[in-house]
Amino acid sequence: MAPSASPPTLRIALAGLGRMGKRHAMHLLHKVARAELIAVSTPSATERDWAAEHLAPYGVRIYEGFEEMLEVEEGKIQAVVVASVTTVHADQTIRAIERGLHVLCEKPLSTDGEISRTVTAAASLHPSLKIMCGFSRRFDPSYRAAHAHITSGAIGVPKIIRSQTCDKRDPTGFFVNFAKHSGGIFVDCSIHDIDLALWFFSAGGKGDGARPKSAMGVGICAIEPSLAEYGDVDNAIGVVEFYGGMVAYFYASRMMAAGQEDSTEIVGTEGKITVALAPRVDHIEVHSPQGVTRQVPPTFFERFEGAFVREAEEWVGCCLEGTEVPVPLEGAVRAVEIGGALQESLRTGRKVWWDQEGRRVERAGL
Amino acid sequence: MAPSASPPTLRIALAGLGRMGKRHAMHLLHKVARAELIAVSTPSATERDWAAEHLAPYGVRIYEGFEEMLEVEEGKIQAVVVASVTTVHADQTIRAIERGLHVLCEKPLSTDGEISRTVTAAASLHPSLKIMCGFSRRFDPSYRAAHAHITSGAIGVPKIIRSQTCDKRDPTGFFVNFAKHSGGIFVDCSIHDIDLALWFFSAGGKGDGARPKSAMGVGICAIEPSLAEYGDVDNAIGVVEFYGGMVAYFYASRMMAAGQEDSTEIVGTEGKITVALAPRVDHIEVHSPQGVTRQVPPTFFERFEGAFVREAEEWVGCCLEGTEVPVPLEGAVRAVEIGGALQESLRTGRKVWWDQEGRRVERAGL
Amino acid sequence: MAPSASPPTLRIALAGLGRMGKRHAMHLLHKVARAELIAVSTPSATERDWAAEHLAPYGVRIYEGFEEMLEVEEGKIQAVVVASVTTVHADQTIRAIERGLHVLCEKPLSTDGEISRTVTAAASLHPSLKIMCGFSRRFDPSYRAAHAHITSGAIGVPKIIRSQTCDKRDPTGFFVNFAKHSGGIFVDCSIHDIDLALWFFSAGGKGDGARPKSAMGVGICAIEPSLAEYGDVDNAIGVVEFYGGMVAYFYASRMMAAGQEDSTEIVGTEGKITVALAPRVDHIEVHSPQGVTRQVPPTFFERFEGAFVREAEEWVGCCLEGTEVPVPLEGAVRAVEIGGALQESLRTGRKVWWDQEGRRVERAGL
Amino acid sequence: MAPSASPPTLRIALAGLGRMGKRHAMHLLHKVARAELIAVSTPSATERDWAAEHLAPYGVRIYEGFEEMLEVEEGKIQAVVVASVTTVHADQTIRAIERGLHVLCEKPLSTDGEISRTVTAAASLHPSLKIMCGFSRRFDPSYRAAHAHITSGAIGVPKIIRSQTCDKRDPTGFFVNFAKHSGGIFVDCSIHDIDLALWFFSAGGKGDGARPKSAMGVGICAIEPSLAEYGDVDNAIGVVEFYGGMVAYFYASRMMAAGQEDSTEIVGTEGKITVALAPRVDHIEVHSPQGVTRQVPPTFFERFEGAFVREAEEWVGCCLEGTEVPVPLEGAVRAVEIGGALQESLRTGRKVWWDQEGRRVERAGL
Repeated sequence: MAPSASPPTLRIALAGLGRMGKRHAMHLLHKVARAELIAVSTPSATERDWAAEHLAPYGVRIYEGFEEMLEVEEGKIQAVVVASVTTVHADQTIRAIERGLHVLCEKPLSTDGEISRTVTAAASLHPSLKIMCGFSRRFDPSYRAAHAHITSGAIGVPKIIRSQTCDKRDPTGFFVNFAKHSGGIFVDCSIHDIDLALWFFSAGGKGDGARPKSAMGVGICAIEPSLAEYGDVDNAIGVVEFYGGMVAYFYASRMMAAGQEDSTEIVGTEGKITVALAPRVDHIEVHSPQGVTRQVPPTFFERFEGAFVREAEEWVGCCLEGTEVPVPLEGAVRAVEIGGALQESLRTGRKVWWDQEGRRVERAGL
Repeated sequence: MAPSASPPTLRIALAGLGRMGKRHAMHLLHKVARAELIAVSTPSATERDWAAEHLAPYGVRIYEGFEEMLEVEEGKIQAVVVASVTTVHADQTIRAIERGLHVLCEKPLSTDGEISRTVTAAASLHPSLKIMCGFSRRFDPSYRAAHAHITSGAIGVPKIIRSQTCDKRDPTGFFVNFAKHSGGIFVDCSIHDIDLALWFFSAGGKGDGARPKSAMGVGICAIEPSLAEYGDVDNAIGVVEFYGGMVAYFYASRMMAAGQEDSTEIVGTEGKITVALAPRVDHIEVHSPQGVTRQVPPTFFERFEGAFVREAEEWVGCCLEGTEVPVPLEGAVRAVEIGGALQESLRTGRKVWWDQEGRRVERAGL
Repeated sequence: MAPSASPPTLRIALAGLGRMGKRHAMHLLHKVARAELIAVSTPSATERDWAAEHLAPYGVRIYEGFEEMLEVEEGKIQAVVVASVTTVHADQTIRAIERGLHVLCEKPLSTDGEISRTVTAAASLHPSLKIMCGFSRRFDPSYRAAHAHITSGAIGVPKIIRSQTCDKRDPTGFFVNFAKHSGGIFVDCSIHDIDLALWFFSAGGKGDGARPKSAMGVGICAIEPSLAEYGDVDNAIGVVEFYGGMVAYFYASRMMAAGQEDSTEIVGTEGKITVALAPRVDHIEVHSPQGVTRQVPPTFFERFEGAFVREAEEWVGCCLEGTEVPVPLEGAVRAVEIGGALQESLRTGRKVWWDQEGRRVERAGL
Repeated sequence: MAPSASPPTLRIALAGLGRMGKRHAMHLLHKVARAELIAVSTPSATERDWAAEHLAPYGVRIYEGFEEMLEVEEGKIQAVVVASVTTVHADQTIRAIERGLHVLCEKPLSTDGEISRTVTAAASLHPSLKIMCGFSRRFDPSYRAAHAHITSGAIGVPKIIRSQTCDKRDPTGFFVNFAKHSGGIFVDCSIHDIDLALWFFSAGGKGDGARPKSAMGVGICAIEPSLAEYGDVDNAIGVVEFYGGMVAYFYASRMMAAGQEDSTEIVGTEGKITVALAPRVDHIEVHSPQGVTRQVPPTFFERFEGAFVREAEEWVGCCLEGTEVPVPLEGAVRAVEIGGALQESLRTGRKVWWDQEGRRVERAGL
């Protein structure tokens, strides 16, 4: 009664084995049923040692160079997951596209809008390939339930969105070094919130998506003064106006005491939806003479682990079945542009403006 | 064993019997032990009819004119509560001061910063009088507990404040007419949040209070397009930078579906405090096939009724005992100035700047 | 324009100035508009000293003996609030009734069902008097909202009630001495929950009220072994079956770490209502590296202060207007009987049974 | 660089493809990295059709008979998961044990204490086999965090446990047919809560586990009168006293309006832990004119899906590495005995007693 052939799986190479890369590797290996992890590449010897211990026993081949991996594995892999440092995201994605491989690229495509556009340009030449930027929150059950509610009209027309990405304070100051290449806090953190705003505003019936009109950012170095030298801050607030009468406002922080606090509110003309307004990591509360205490997820990973797995599962499904990816690439570019504009406004003190066609414009005296 | 004399009470006249005036009257009459309501004035015949029914039985005398009341009751009253329309707040307060009467004036002193300053000028000539602007939230137990925590250093140095004043959507559009004289949504609603920001930032050890550096406001008419003709909106977001590296950001709305949502978060370098993040009117939840549902206060009054009573009690105490009022008048003026600047920014699209001495300045190209 | 006469007030004498008595005194003096506190009596010299300081300045007369007070104040008082020690509740109530005075008596009428019945007997001879036992929770807005929901049919027919009265652990062991006369934890604490169960089950359309069928109680001395000598415990669980297919179960404790936890759930055939399932004293939460913490009311008083005031206000209103009291006396007796039966079951290990007419019966072998 | 051999996996046969069996199959196939599903057996043709569609493509072999499967797969399988109807749990488990196979058996081992003991007897003859009863909640992160807290002494000594297993009302009345063989609501539902009580009380330092002293159960048929003919109810409350001064009390219901409500509270001498006191299925809340609404998990599966996967993962790990199973078999038997005693008490109206050695005893007149 056994079948002649097992269901098809997608044969995948993975670039990068840093914090996120390791997690992608474990997910692809153990949690994504239809994925087959064939090879990994990383310039880091330490990371290759890790791979030798955790991946090699499962037959995964290990490379130092990305290009080398693509060449040797030609014909044996069908797709690439790009989880390397942000600065090479766009380049590696384009090179994979040019070899006819599907790509799931960690966010952001690039910290630069122009460079991001080169990815969409490359992708548009290979319309059959499934190229997706990994905005993991779109795969979280709570955010999906929120989107479904909005689409159903439950809150009328969405008009105001508040969203925040706030990390637990890291006394090691890890993010300070990271800041050199991150593109700034709005591009590194708020990009998730920007993507959510674009997604939710579009769910309200505006098929063509939300078009930004202005962006204004401010921020402070409350705990890490050294960020200033990269034009960055540890707490930032951004406000984006959209054509059509919508506003989104964002808060990003490296200073949360209790844990990761990623919350979103979508205010519509007839109702409101909150997502993780009061974050909690599990279902318990402890009563003591100090009061009643609950815990918050220590990092984004405890909050969104399931979403990362689902993201990979769905992208694999799209590759195998030729269906459309759930996160259009165009939005990923727009999110980078808006994040960059907020960071620019933070640095200059000036508001950034776009015209209705999405071109940056100057407004005299503004 | 009966004493020769009862404890002293404060003999009060009340100006205005609108929505808030009626409530002040009932509080002074029935809930503020040391207050004695002697007289009320209102130009509205309907309101005087209400007074004849609800106040006259307790011996309260009723007047049409404010000045007339002050004159006739001279020597019989010691203090005035001003709860009339905003446009006469400053004038009535000053006239009471000039007659040597203590004053509790509903917020705002005026919708105009300049006019507000005339009140502080008048008050400074009568230093023994207790002149207080009614920022009721400062008397709410939750806001007080938050302030006490901050003062104790529990969250380190407060750096970021988010605060919102959001009204339940009123299908009658009451607030549209109100908008003509309200000074705009930032002055009418956000002024509470601005006052809280000034209060909480100062609690963090900066004795001299928080000095604004820039203000930027945006907004939309999502449900009431006609507000546009008054330069007002029904949803607004404002961001205020302060000298010393602090930022406050505000949301004001007329569009809440479930009820009044007045929430505040104070983020410090070592912790965070939330106030009414998830608003609730009581302690019950109802389980049904639709889910688990709780109710939100329908208006600010259900949320802050106790605070209004306590505000009156404490002001009465200050008048009787000659102690300092808990809400300094200077802050009330600064709150109006910041609210007005946000409203101006909303109208012009330009950011407003102050120098370190609090003077408005122009920044070329900003 | 002043009226010839002020609105009438109720002239009240108060018996007892212990923890609750002091609070009743302050409420009657300062918070219950239509109440006039004329006199107080207490055998305690310390309490009389307190009265001399806090009540005498307002003209309140102070007595040592209850009888003496009634006699001297004859004709000058119309009503009595009984807040003395439980052992004299019934006696003082009956003596006041016999003098034609309205009575608000603190719960319970007595720790003994028989003695409680003597109060109803006395009251039935004076049908125009307003005799009420103070089950304060019935005046709490949340419990009232719950009752209104049930009455409206929102949860179908109420079938299962869980309710708890749990005190914060008191390291002074105050309640141990108290236990000698309290009638036991079920009579002292659970009586509130029993009263709520009777009230809510009756709200479900059973006009004749809920009739108990069996009662079973167990308990432990977890922190105060010395309670055992009074046949009492510091943690107790009781289960009461009612004729008609309803069950209520109760938890009473002296061992809560965080504060007072008085919670109730009413499960109906179509829905459920929870009251204070997750107790909180205010609207704030504090984020720190230890997590997110909220506070719980330290005692029942912080939770129910408003309910005590409203209870007095409504009883005063009934006395002045001749309307029916909101808490029928008969239920107060039934609550004592059920509480006593639970305590008996706790002591004997045996289940207690009633027949359909409410008579205690023995069931062979049960 | 590929290794000579992949890491070992556990080759598993599965008995039963009902509601839970299907889920176990999918977990073993796709989510438990070290498990290999080799074969399944079920007497149901419909279930075998389902297997042909969903399992056969992955090489899983399908059988009608359990014994047949064990025989044919001899040497090819190392372990069995028993997810068939409760009535054959014990028999299939024993037969697998006798063939030298590890077993993970769905709860309960049997609805009968005696029969449960035959499983432990069989297991004791094969001490190297990993025989575990699937109490899934012990693998839930929230329950584990609670257990870790208790073990750490954070709440002192656990003394009182309240726990409930409450299903969403199922208008199809599915559970009525199920009731014939379920052993009653205390054995079917409360057994989870009983197991948790045993686990948590033991975590408090009592190495030898908690020994029951008495059990008392009551219940009603509020929505399904026909349950009475099986001696069952749709709402039940049970109270269990333990030697050493601990009490656990339980609520089981088929009548929840909003969804599955599985909650637990552990009260210790120094603190309290609540688990899912206010159940929620995700992180969103919807604001509408009806209030603020959250959803509850529709069934236990949405609540505990992750726990089922982890349970299988850990049991597989124990089998492969020869470590001790996390849920000792002896406790599973005791849980059945206590559940049975509660059901007996519900039926007879009598309290059930045990002596200190765990033998049932009669107490005269109790």
